[in-house]
This record gives sequence, C-alpha cells and structure tokens, in this order.
Amino acid sequence: MNASMDTGAIVQSAYSAPRQATDLARRYTDVRAETERLCAPLVTEDYGIQTMPDVSPPKWHLAHTAWFFECFVLTPFVRDYSPYHPRYHYLFNSYYETVGQPYPRPRRGLLSRPTVAEIYDYRAYVDAAMLSLLQALPGIMPSADEDEVMRRTLLGVHHEQQHQELLLTDIKHIFAMNPLRPEYQQRPTDRTEARARSTWCEFDAGMRRVGHDGSEFAFDNETPRHKVYANAYAIASRLVTNGEYLQFMEAGGYAQPEHWLSDGWTTVRQQKWQAPLYWERYDGRWWHMTLSGMQPIDEWAPVCHVSLYEADAFARWRGKRLPTEAEWEVAASREPTTGNLRDAGYLHPRPAPTTAVPAQLFGDVWEWTCSAYGPYPGYRADKGALGEYNGKFMSNQVVLRGGSCVTAGEHVRSTYRNFFYPGDRWQFTGLRLADDR
Amino acid sequence: MNASMDTGAIVQSAYSAPRQATDLARRYTDVRAETERLCAPLVTEDYGIQTMPDVSPPKWHLAHTAWFFECFVLTPFVRDYSPYHPRYHYLFNSYYETVGQPYPRPRRGLLSRPTVAEIYDYRAYVDAAMLSLLQALPGIMPSADEDEVMRRTLLGVHHEQQHQELLLTDIKHIFAMNPLRPEYQQRPTDRTEARARSTWCEFDAGMRRVGHDGSEFAFDNETPRHKVYANAYAIASRLVTNGEYLQFMEAGGYAQPEHWLSDGWTTVRQQKWQAPLYWERYDGRWWHMTLSGMQPIDEWAPVCHVSLYEADAFARWRGKRLPTEAEWEVAASREPTTGNLRDAGYLHPRPAPTTAVPAQLFGDVWEWTCSAYGPYPGYRADKGALGEYNGKFMSNQVVLRGGSCVTAGEHVRSTYRNFFYPGDRWQFTGLRLADDR
Amino acid sequence: MNASMDTGAIVQSAYSAPRQATDLARRYTDVRAETERLCAPLVTEDYGIQTMPDVSPPKWHLAHTAWFFECFVLTPFVRDYSPYHPRYHYLFNSYYETVGQPYPRPRRGLLSRPTVAEIYDYRAYVDAAMLSLLQALPGIMPSADEDEVMRRTLLGVHHEQQHQELLLTDIKHIFAMNPLRPEYQQRPTDRTEARARSTWCEFDAGMRRVGHDGSEFAFDNETPRHKVYANAYAIASRLVTNGEYLQFMEAGGYAQPEHWLSDGWTTVRQQKWQAPLYWERYDGRWWHMTLSGMQPIDEWAPVCHVSLYEADAFARWRGKRLPTEAEWEVAASREPTTGNLRDAGYLHPRPAPTTAVPAQLFGDVWEWTCSAYGPYPGYRADKGALGEYNGKFMSNQVVLRGGSCVTAGEHVRSTYRNFFYPGDRWQFTGLRLADDR
Amino acid sequence: MNASMDTGAIVQSAYSAPRQATDLARRYTDVRAETERLCAPLVTEDYGIQTMPDVSPPKWHLAHTAWFFECFVLTPFVRDYSPYHPRYHYLFNSYYETVGQPYPRPRRGLLSRPTVAEIYDYRAYVDAAMLSLLQALPGIMPSADEDEVMRRTLLGVHHEQQHQELLLTDIKHIFAMNPLRPEYQQRPTDRTEARARSTWCEFDAGMRRVGHDGSEFAFDNETPRHKVYANAYAIASRLVTNGEYLQFMEAGGYAQPEHWLSDGWTTVRQQKWQAPLYWERYDGRWWHMTLSGMQPIDEWAPVCHVSLYEADAFARWRGKRLPTEAEWEVAASREPTTGNLRDAGYLHPRPAPTTAVPAQLFGDVWEWTCSAYGPYPGYRADKGALGEYNGKFMSNQVVLRGGSCVTAGEHVRSTYRNFFYPGDRWQFTGLRLADDR
Repeated sequence: MNASMDTGAIVQSAYSAPRQATDLARRYTDVRAETERLCAPLVTEDYGIQTMPDVSPPKWHLAHTAWFFECFVLTPFVRDYSPYHPRYHYLFNSYYETVGQPYPRPRRGLLSRPTVAEIYDYRAYVDAAMLSLLQALPGIMPSADEDEVMRRTLLGVHHEQQHQELLLTDIKHIFAMNPLRPEYQQRPTDRTEARARSTWCEFDAGMRRVGHDGSEFAFDNETPRHKVYANAYAIASRLVTNGEYLQFMEAGGYAQPEHWLSDGWTTVRQQKWQAPLYWERYDGRWWHMTLSGMQPIDEWAPVCHVSLYEADAFARWRGKRLPTEAEWEVAASREPTTGNLRDAGYLHPRPAPTTAVPAQLFGDVWEWTCSAYGPYPGYRADKGALGEYNGKFMSNQVVLRGGSCVTAGEHVRSTYRNFFYPGDRWQFTGLRLADDR
Repeated sequence: MNASMDTGAIVQSAYSAPRQATDLARRYTDVRAETERLCAPLVTEDYGIQTMPDVSPPKWHLAHTAWFFECFVLTPFVRDYSPYHPRYHYLFNSYYETVGQPYPRPRRGLLSRPTVAEIYDYRAYVDAAMLSLLQALPGIMPSADEDEVMRRTLLGVHHEQQHQELLLTDIKHIFAMNPLRPEYQQRPTDRTEARARSTWCEFDAGMRRVGHDGSEFAFDNETPRHKVYANAYAIASRLVTNGEYLQFMEAGGYAQPEHWLSDGWTTVRQQKWQAPLYWERYDGRWWHMTLSGMQPIDEWAPVCHVSLYEADAFARWRGKRLPTEAEWEVAASREPTTGNLRDAGYLHPRPAPTTAVPAQLFGDVWEWTCSAYGPYPGYRADKGALGEYNGKFMSNQVVLRGGSCVTAGEHVRSTYRNFFYPGDRWQFTGLRLADDR
Repeated sequence: MNASMDTGAIVQSAYSAPRQATDLARRYTDVRAETERLCAPLVTEDYGIQTMPDVSPPKWHLAHTAWFFECFVLTPFVRDYSPYHPRYHYLFNSYYETVGQPYPRPRRGLLSRPTVAEIYDYRAYVDAAMLSLLQALPGIMPSADEDEVMRRTLLGVHHEQQHQELLLTDIKHIFAMNPLRPEYQQRPTDRTEARARSTWCEFDAGMRRVGHDGSEFAFDNETPRHKVYANAYAIASRLVTNGEYLQFMEAGGYAQPEHWLSDGWTTVRQQKWQAPLYWERYDGRWWHMTLSGMQPIDEWAPVCHVSLYEADAFARWRGKRLPTEAEWEVAASREPTTGNLRDAGYLHPRPAPTTAVPAQLFGDVWEWTCSAYGPYPGYRADKGALGEYNGKFMSNQVVLRGGSCVTAGEHVRSTYRNFFYPGDRWQFTGLRLADDR
Repeated sequence: MNASMDTGAIVQSAYSAPRQATDLARRYTDVRAETERLCAPLVTEDYGIQTMPDVSPPKWHLAHTAWFFECFVLTPFVRDYSPYHPRYHYLFNSYYETVGQPYPRPRRGLLSRPTVAEIYDYRAYVDAAMLSLLQALPGIMPSADEDEVMRRTLLGVHHEQQHQELLLTDIKHIFAMNPLRPEYQQRPTDRTEARARSTWCEFDAGMRRVGHDGSEFAFDNETPRHKVYANAYAIASRLVTNGEYLQFMEAGGYAQPEHWLSDGWTTVRQQKWQAPLYWERYDGRWWHMTLSGMQPIDEWAPVCHVSLYEADAFARWRGKRLPTEAEWEVAASREPTTGNLRDAGYLHPRPAPTTAVPAQLFGDVWEWTCSAYGPYPGYRADKGALGEYNGKFMSNQVVLRGGSCVTAGEHVRSTYRNFFYPGDRWQFTGLRLADDR
C-alpha cells in the first residue's frame, strides 16, 4: 500500500493550524487527554453499556479512537510497530470494511473484556508510539510520507473530537435508560431570564459560494467550495424553543397526519412518539432527562432531541420550512464561531441571548436542514480505507449544521456538515425556521 | 369544504391539452378504457395477489383509481352523489390520511371480496357519474368549481396513467414470484442487432433553468421552474447495458464493499443480492423474468431492475457517477419525448439505436439520478388531501427520470420527477453514467 | 422403494369399514365430492386467500388433498403414471420433507396460478386414476402392495376429511379478516332455549386402558392401546359457555397475571388479547364472526376460539383445571359418538341439551386438555414419508379431543387425538372443566 | 396479607434438614457465601453483561437472590423493615407479576447502576437483616409466622443454589460470546482414560410410585408422590458421548429431516445449527468453549449443550428414544446422589467411570427426557406470589433430570424436575438413551 497516496481528499489543508510536528504533538496530547477527562465522572460499570445499536459503550469510543491511530498511522508508517493486541483490529474497527469486516456494531455492549483498565493501557501504548513518531519528525522517512503522517494524525485528532461528542451523547442515553437516572454532572447554575423574541434575518437572491475554502482543516465532505444559486429567503433569529414546541404538542401535532412527511407519520405511529426524546410528563408538568438528571422543561430553552420528522412537522405546522444547508451556511459564515458549546460546561441547550441577531447559530443544538446529505459538485471519495470516512454515508441522511452544547468549540465551523437519519433523536438536535422571501 | 381552493398547486395548467369538458371527457374515457385493456390477459385469480407490501393486487389498482374520482370529484361536487359502497372509501384509499385512516397497505392481498366483477361494476358506476358530470359542464355550478372539477379530473387521468405503469410492474412481480412463471404476453419479435457504443455528451458550466414552465400539465413537484447553477459535465449517450453490468458482477462487484454506499452494502448482505432482481443463473447462463416469461439476458439491452445502490456502485466501480436530476433535465429538454415506451408494446427495455446521440432518454428504464427527492425552491404542498399526493414523500427517496418501457407515452416529459427508495428494485429502473468535465 | 413396508403404523386396521376395494372406491368418491360441495358457496376470488401463515387458501386444500393420492398411491403403485403437472409435487406438498423440500407455507396465498379451474381439473384427473386403480383391484399386483394401496387410500380419505375441517376453519378466518364480513351460509334457525346447568360426572381412581383398540380405522398416534393409572376425578357435564367466559372477562381476567401460564401472559400482552378470537364489542354488546356473518353472542352457547392459555386461565380462575386426555377418553368412551357435528349443518357451537349428562363430548368445539401431545408408550413413527404424518409434531403442542361443529361425523371417535399449539385460536376450540376427587 | 397462608405448597417439608433456626442460619450463611465465592474470578466488567435475553448479568443474579429474601421474608415479617433501595423491588424482581410488573428481562444488561459494589452492599444489608431475624427466633412472632419465615428462608436458600448454577451457565455464555474467549478457571488436570461401553439397564413393567415423598426439602413441582404405570423398558448405562454424537454429525444428521421433530427441523434451518452450542471446527478438528477456555473435544466425555431437538434426533437416528421422567426417576431412585457435580470442581462433563452401572445419573449434564413439563396429578400451585415459582411454567417446556457439573451436590435428588424449552442449549444439557422392552 502506497500509504501516502490515499487520503489527500480527507484533509484538505492539514497544516493550517499545526504547521509543525511539535504543534501537532501538543494538539494530539491535549485532545487525547480531554477524551479521558470527559470520562472522569464514570464508574467502571458505565463504560460497557450499549442501550441501542446506535449507542456505543464509552470504553468502545476510548478504544476505537486509539485504534484509528494504530490502524492508519502507526501500522503503515512505523517499521516493526507491534499492535497492542492482535484482536483489537477486529474489535475496534467501526465501519472500515476495506481493512476487514468489523465486529458487529449491535454487539459492542457484550464485551466485558478487554477491561476498562486494559483499554486505558491501550491508549497509553498508542500515545507513546504516536508521540515517539511525531517527535522523530522530520527526517526519518520520505517527505511525502511525513506529510501523510501529519495529515492523518490531524484527521485522527478531529475524529477523536467527534467521538468526544458521541461519548457525551451516548452517556446521556445510557443514563436516561436506567430507571435510577444517574447524573453525569451537577447542574450548572445557569438560570437565565433571557426571553428573546424570534425575528427574521433576510437574505437577497443571488449566486453564493459555499463549502470549505481551504485555509483551515476540513473534512472532505465540505469540499469543494462551489457556486449555488439561492432565491431570496429569511431565517429565524434564534432556535425554536421548548415553549413553541409545546404549543405544537398541545395543538395535537403528534395526532395530525397533515403536518408530517409520510415516513415521519409512519414513525410517529410505530414508535408512539408523543414528545421529544427524553421528555416525560409527571407531577402535572413536563420534565426531561439531562446530563444533570431529570429537570423541568425550560420554555425558553431550545427544543432538543427532535428528529428531522418532528422538526419538519413543526415547521410545516407553523407555515414555515427548514433552511437548506446553503441558506444556513450563508448566514453563519458572517458570524463568529461562538455559542453554548461544550467548553461552556452546560452540556445542555440554553435560552437565546437577547443581544445577538441572529443568535445560536453555533452551539446549543445541531440544526436540521432540509438538505439531503450528498456529495458537493466535484466531490470524489478517496480510494483507500479512509475514503469510507464520509462518502459512503451519502444516502438516506440529512444535513445538520452548527454544532451543539456537547461539541468542542474548536471543532465547529460554518462549512461543517453533520448528518444523521431523519428519525434519529438521541443527538442534541433541534431546529431554526426559514421562509421564502 | 371549499373544494375549489385546495388543489391549485397540483395541476399547474390543467387546460393545456383538454381545453374543454368534451375534450376532457374523451381523454377520461380513453385512459379508463386503457387501464382495463391492460388487464385483459389476466385471469380472475391474478387480480387479487399481493406478493410484497410494495405490490398492490391488480384489482386494487382498478378500484383505487375509481375511488380517486369518487372521493375528489364526485363526492364533493355532485349533489346527492351516492358512493357505490359505504366501505370502499376505507378499502381503496391509498394514503390520504386526511380523508380517513386507510386500510393497511400490506393487507391488500387478503381481500377476496369485493370480487373482480364487482370492481368492474364499481368502475362503470363511477364512469357513468363522471361522464354525466362532464357532459353537463359548463353552467351547472360556480365557474371556480367547474374549473376545479376539470383540474381534478385531469389530475385523476394522470393518476390513472401512473397506476397503469404500476399495474404492469406489479403483474411482473406477481408472475415472477410464481414458480410456474406465467407469461403476460407473447414475446414480441424484437431481436435487434443494434450495438451502440457509449460516448459522452458534454455540457458547459452555467446557470440553468429547470422545472415545469407552465404550458402543459405537470404535477406540483415539478414546480416552480427555477434557476440552478451547474458545473461542466457530461452524460453517457446511452443507458448502461446488461453486458456492462455483467462485467461488474464478474469482477466481484457484489462482494467488494468499496464500491457501495454504506446502506447499500448492508442491504446487499441482508438481502443476499448477487444480481439484479429477476435474474437467475441456470443452464450455464443468465436468464431473467420478463412480461413474456423467462428469457435469456440480452447483453446489449439496458440493465433493468437495479436499485439506486446497485446503480451507484456500478458507476463508482467505473470511476463515474450518476447525473443530478438537473443535469439530466438539461440534456433531455432538448430531445423529443420518444422512445421505447409502453405504447411500443415491448414492455421490456431494448438495445439503444445506433442512430441517435444521446439515446434512450425517454423510455426503456427509469434512470436513477443522484438527487434526493425534495422540494424545489418555493414549492409548497397543498393544504387539502390532494396536497398529500407528492409533497409528503419528500424524504428518503431518490429522483428517477425519463419513463420506462411500461410508461404511457403521453405521460412522460423532461420535467417529470419519479421517486423511489434507494433499495427498490421492482420498478423498471436502470442507469446512465455521468461525469465531471 | 418397497412401498408396502412403510405405512403399517399409520393405519392400524385399514379394513374395518371398507373391506373391499369397491367399498373403498365408494367411500373415496363420497368424501372427494363432499370436499367440493363444501366449496360451493365460494367465489373464485375466495379460493386464493391466505390471511396468516396458519391458514391455507381453499384451493391449496383442494390441490394438496389430490396431491396426497398422487404422491403416496398413484406414483408408487401405478406403472407409468404421469403426474398431472411436474411442479405440483413442489407446490402442494405440505410438510413431507423426505419427499422433497416443500414450497414455503407462508407463501401459499401468492399463487394465482394454477387457477381454480385447473385445480378442479387436477382433482378430476387424480380421481379418474384412483378409481381406475381401485376398480382394477384385486389381482393386478402383489397382494402386499394391494393391501398397501388400500391402506393408503383409506388414510387419504381420512386425511381429506381433516382438510374439510381446515377448509371451513380457514374460510371463517378469511371472511373474518375482510372488513366486508361475507357470509358462508345463511344462519340456520337454531335458536334453542336450552339452559343446561353444569354438574359433575365422577370417576373412581384406578387403572384404565386408553388408546385405539384396533377394530376401526385410527391414526398411528392413537396407538398402542395402553394402561394408565388415574386418580379419582370429575368432569363437567357440559362445555364452558360464553356467559361463564364473559364473567371471567368482566372480572378482569385478561388483566390479572395470576391466572395465566407464563407463556400465556406474555401472549396476552403481546397480542393484546381482550376476548376470544372473532369477538368484537359494539352497540353496547358483544358480537362475534360466524360462518353466517356477525352474530350476537349467545350466553348459553359454548365459548369458542379460545387458546389453551385462555382455557387454562379460565379454569384456574374458577379453581378447577382442564382434564387430561386420558380422563376425557375414559368418560367419552362410554358415550355415543353423536353431537353438533358438521353434518348437522350449524357450523357453529350450540347450547348444551338439558337431556344428556354428560353432554357435548362430541361436536361443538374441540376440547383443550392439559396433556402435551406426545407418543403413547410403545409408539414408533413410521420410517417412510408417511411417518411424518403425526409423529414429528410431538413437541410444543397440546391434545384436544372430541371434534367440533365443523368435523365430519364419521371422523370422530373417543380415541382421536387432535393437537394444536397452546396459542392457537382459529380452530373451533373450547373447554370443559375437570377437578380432582 | 396473611403471609403464613400462601406458600405451604412450595416447601413440602421445610424442616427435614435444618430443624432449627440456628441450623438454618448456618445454612443460609454458607450458601450466600458460596454465591460470592463463585464470582471471585470475575472482573467488575463481567458482572454487567447480558449476551442474550435468556442470560442474566452476574450482578443481576447477585441482586435478585438478595431481593428474594427482602421481598418474601424481610418485608412481610420484619416490622419497620426498610428496603435497601426503593427501586430495587422493580429492578430485581424476576417474574413475580403479582408483586408488580418486573423490569423487562431483555434489558437487564443495560444497567450500569447500581454498581457491583452497591450490589455487594445490598447483599450485606439483607444478610444482616436475615441473620438478625433468624437469631431472634423463636418467640418473637406467632408460631405460624415463624414456621413460614423458616419455610421461606429455606426456599430462598434453594433458590439461591439454582441461581448459582445459572451464574456459571451464564458466565460461560458471556465468555463464549467474547472473541477473546476468557477463562473462568484453569483447566483441571482431569484427563481420564476411562472408556466405558454403553450397556442396557432393564426394568420390568409395573406400577411405580414417583414424586417427592416428604422426608426432605423439595419444590412443589415434585409433589405429590403418585402412582404411574410403566411398560418394561431399558435405559443406557451411561450418557451419550461426544464421539457418538460426532458419528451422527458425520452421517449428515443435521441435514436429514427424517430424524427431527418438525419444530426442531425448523430451528435447525433457522439457526443454521451444525453442531452443539459452543462447538467450533478449526485446525482440522472440533473444539468447544469451556469454563477453562477453548478445549479440544474429548470423544469419551458426554455430549453437552444440545437442545431437546438434537437429543431427540440423535436418539431417533439410533433407533432409540429418550426416557420418560418416570423411567429415569425409577432408575435413579436406587442410586446414590453422587457424581461429577459442581463441588468436584471440574465444571465440565467427564467420561463415565467404567466401574458403575448405571453411571452418571447425577452430575455431568442435565438429561433431556421425553416428558413435557406439567403438573403431577393433584398438584396445585400456590395462591400467593410464590405460587408463580414453578407452576406457571408448565407449558411448552420439557423435563430434565439429574443435575450437571455446575449443580451444587446438595441440590440434586432423584425427584428433582428441571425444565427448559426444547430449543434451549446454553444449559449443561445432554442425553441418555432409553428403549422399550
């Protein structure tokens, strides 16, 4: 395998932030440590649970992110590298079919061994090898290979940040499915009195450019930057709130087929959906599970854990629609990449500030768009195994934008394309209205 | 119900072809008779079979298309109209949830009653009422209502043509699932020696207009006509052939995950796909079921009964891609709407002629595009029950273009958007390659 | 294949009734004609429906019973016999794995071809060959073979009577699943005023003999006759009535786990059972589907279409139990084989007469016992394909006794062992209480 | 609740072994400690795994057996007893529907909390309360209640021994499903050269008495002792071996429907069974998973982890049958209750000794009988929740006899009736042949 050939497309500009191996080693160390810091509140037993096929056990996330470096950097580029354990390649491959058939996803929760301690040891083993490699650069291999090591390492760092978000998302599901309803962290004292009204931000018709422009790291699915024509449109100044969503519920939204996409209506009836995921009604009011346990619904906070079907039905009920991903990106590209992101520590969406218009484009919740996830014009998936990273998922899924309250701040940008199936609800997903002009 | 208000969006220009009620009555009569003519080869037993939930029994198609006129024209617009049978509204509503919960689709094959004779009688009853109504126009009701009667009748005629195609598609499945492999018709003597090579038709980058322009009937999902920007591209001069597809199969295409979308690969393994639907290997060669029974594969005929997943995998294996629906429409809008359509009588795709470039844009097989089925900019689904016709299916499905060998010739046009799920194979579906330039 | 060797066990005493081939030919002709007479009320469309995997389409019953003679008599014993159609052996084999893998049972309703007319023609073809064979006996083959032809023919006649019952049972299900609720026959004017109280018939402890004694035809599973020891017991003088069962329902029986077998309670919740099969509540009262359409519940008629789980739960709720099959047989062996059987024409259970104690042992409903269906001591299943007739079903099923209102009168006897799964309800099944003494 | 009334049937003779509370307290302490000793080889992660719905996580067994005493002894009989945690009653109730709907069985593996440490603390809390109660007896409550406390405590001790066996059975499954194949214990040096031939032990026909006679503890399903008549029969002197079973496999047994019960054959095809559970073929020979990891098959050791279907098919292939439970009991009642039981430490079946005939009646593997699990004549299930212990499972299951290599030695006896579904294989189950005489 000519390892240097096959991942150019993934990392468009690997060196934007860490120009040198020492910078990259520092970035690597920080992100790897952060993953483990996020697991600090867990007890050993929490690490192994898989509450549904979509959820992975925390220890699987820990091992898989180490495997990523082992499989794509250490094994191809370090002579005589000896993998930590011969079966881990099978156990912790997620979906890279071209490097071997992975252990079945729905069975990830059946593995008591390797233990949590063994997996932390595995991480340490990989870290030592990675840092040893990065510290030896440059000069130990052909320069094209060195470039590829750095590209792939940087990709692995971003990959690990994606799994940091999944880790929190999955921990929330694991705790929510437990009748004891454990708390991941104490609830921050975040009571805000902000009650921002929703207004419209207007955009003229015209030719636009969207997609990544090459000056920073991006995933291959954000490229190439390209022209799109858009009609005049408007997007709401803030996210849809729990209070607004409750009006839809109380108006009978979940019982009225006319608001729903056909597949959505089928899902509503099959799953018996009556409210967003994690909502429960007792003591005469609505509560929902959070990473700080059960909490009453805050009517001014953004609605969260709704599917595309619910987002679309709500918008239709209001006579509006969801934005296209291009409409969203045009609006967001003018705004700072700040908001209620993971680093703020809330790990839960918060009411919009009254001081910014538009608000909440980054953080709080991933925003469903009405755009199916597909290739940009001129996109080509890579030839090697890393070509499976994004491209093969370009069917049946829908684009979400903007990051959430569990996304690392340095991981979001206006061109970032997240994607999930229209019925998925366990991610921190919500919506913003749009309309034609 | 203000019946005149709610279907404007569906039929953009109802009067393009039939300007007057007498024209429309003639059109109605012709199409209704054609449906019954298509059933002539059936025996009574064939009318009731449902081989999978996607398939409807022929008699259900016959009844449902009558119900459409009863529900949307006769009941709202004819004073004192008495429906043929009180339960038919429940039994033959397909998916219009807002007029009442329909009888479950997967159970359509469990109904021995009403009998075939009763359903023909139902059709005659509806026809008599429809013709009586159309002959009484104009002057018997407010002119807005008369317009609406004509709009809906015309919609019903096009609706019936869609079901004519489904009828043939479903009969093929019903016959193919029967170990006795009945024939619907004798095989036409269509042996052609045409062996057209595939070449590329090139298109420059630029702003394009796509969508229906209003001078003819169209479904609401073809509107509004709008601007899109397209990069330079090329499309193949003809459809992909069985011979080309066999190369993919023989190269191990069905066993190599690298060509496949992730959901496609899952489907290949779950369904154990090894070839297109209806293909069987025996006596040392490949055969497939046709409406004329089992026939050997013709290597120069277009491959048919492939899913989007297979079409996409083939294109990827060839280093090409599928066209977007806009790319296809730009190419097709310059060509005559002719080809191997139902009226040619073959009811099976045929080798491309060597004399036309591009060829086969209309007829033979529906061509998978890479475009998810969604709303055009500015599209709004209707408010009433007929608003369920197209809009609610705008998730999870993929656009197909061009009509097939079982599509009525007057039913296709360059703006027509058909849509199916990416795993569907029982329609007459194939592909044409495209590429960037 | 030495055909004469392999079915001795099935038919213990083939010659009890028809001592000679001419008698047997007459019996054959009568039973075959009766099957067709039972289909007289059907329209062509009714013949092809399969409403669940347990149900077979009427035309499948017609063809399978012909196939039985073709496979087990004509093909092995008639030189140069040419089967009617080469694929029928595949299509109409029910479950005889050793003669070839049968067409999948759940797909029997997908076959429009062969047509009903073709199946009647198939029956006529088989009948001609069978009668020709029987008329040629004796003297045309070795006498052991002639004996075997007569044994198997007689078995086929009894087999056909079993399918006559299934035919009516399945027609009832087919009609009940149709929202139009067709009627198989006009309701007989059977209103009786009989209101028989239930009393106890007592039996002393002691050694008993049960099982077939060899003087009449019997299936192999009724043999050998053998000794069992039974404690003192009592059985109820009549069947449990709808009125008594309604008391159980109204007391909350379907919501109280304490009455139910564990698997029964699981079934109640999964299937959402609230009443016997075919019961519906509207207009303030309970109705149920019958072969004469929807009828109000008669409180004095036996409860019907209950599973073993419901029968057992009712008995437990009453502080009683179901009889063992031996207890039932001891009681029934002293009674005449008469009752509300198919030939009475009601095709529905009727209130017990006040004049007989015990009453209703034969006819009305098959009575669930508490005996698992297993081999009698010394039972050996046959070696050949006909050995699959009964023996291989001796797990997971439960014995029922006594015949029902859709059983041919000459087909029941006190040793007859019917068997179904404990959750089955579409047969005409009810119960009689028993108790220890 | 009049607690003293409702469990008489379960424990027929509570005082046979521990005549006094101090004896009972010692027995309680020993058995409880033994459960925890069996868990010593586990790491924390092992305690939470549930590999299929039939398997419970080890920590669930630990908690459930504590809950049993809390629910049935401490809560009803200790004034002011405060349960350890308010939700444990919900989480650790197995199937006693009448004390409240239990937490769903298939979700037992989704609970990271309570932690293993918390569950050990729960056990200690319950132990302290139980010992405090037992030490206070007699004289602190009405004597009927004291009797009931002792009865239920003794039942709980036997219940805990049953779960000790399930614990080992489930650990084996958990470890076998893990691609790393952990070992529970080092393999004992048990290589024996014994090669005992199988001979027949003959029994005359006659009236027999079976069932528990009241002088020792027994479960209610072993009572009442009653008379049965049995024909002359023989049972094999030892269990069927792996070598004998391999002959069946090599003769094509898994591909030949004629040996199989109908439901068994369906299972073979659906589950793609080719060998007993845990068998794998590689390196040119058969291996199987044991509690000491993967080991080569020993041809002289008893075949283990076969379903009733496989046991029955093997016997039929050999022209023999399985014994009835009465036949087995008559033979076993004359033998000492010794064998390769858990206390021997092998935790795996071993070749039969050549010195005993019959051999292996107790220990090694549970022996499938051909007897459906049902009530003995005169059996009545209890009225209260403990009446759910055995009675409600008396459908669809089959009796096994004799205990296995993971059964506590003091837990087996000749009247003991174990029961599982005919398709179950994860228990230590095998077979012994029988035949008519």
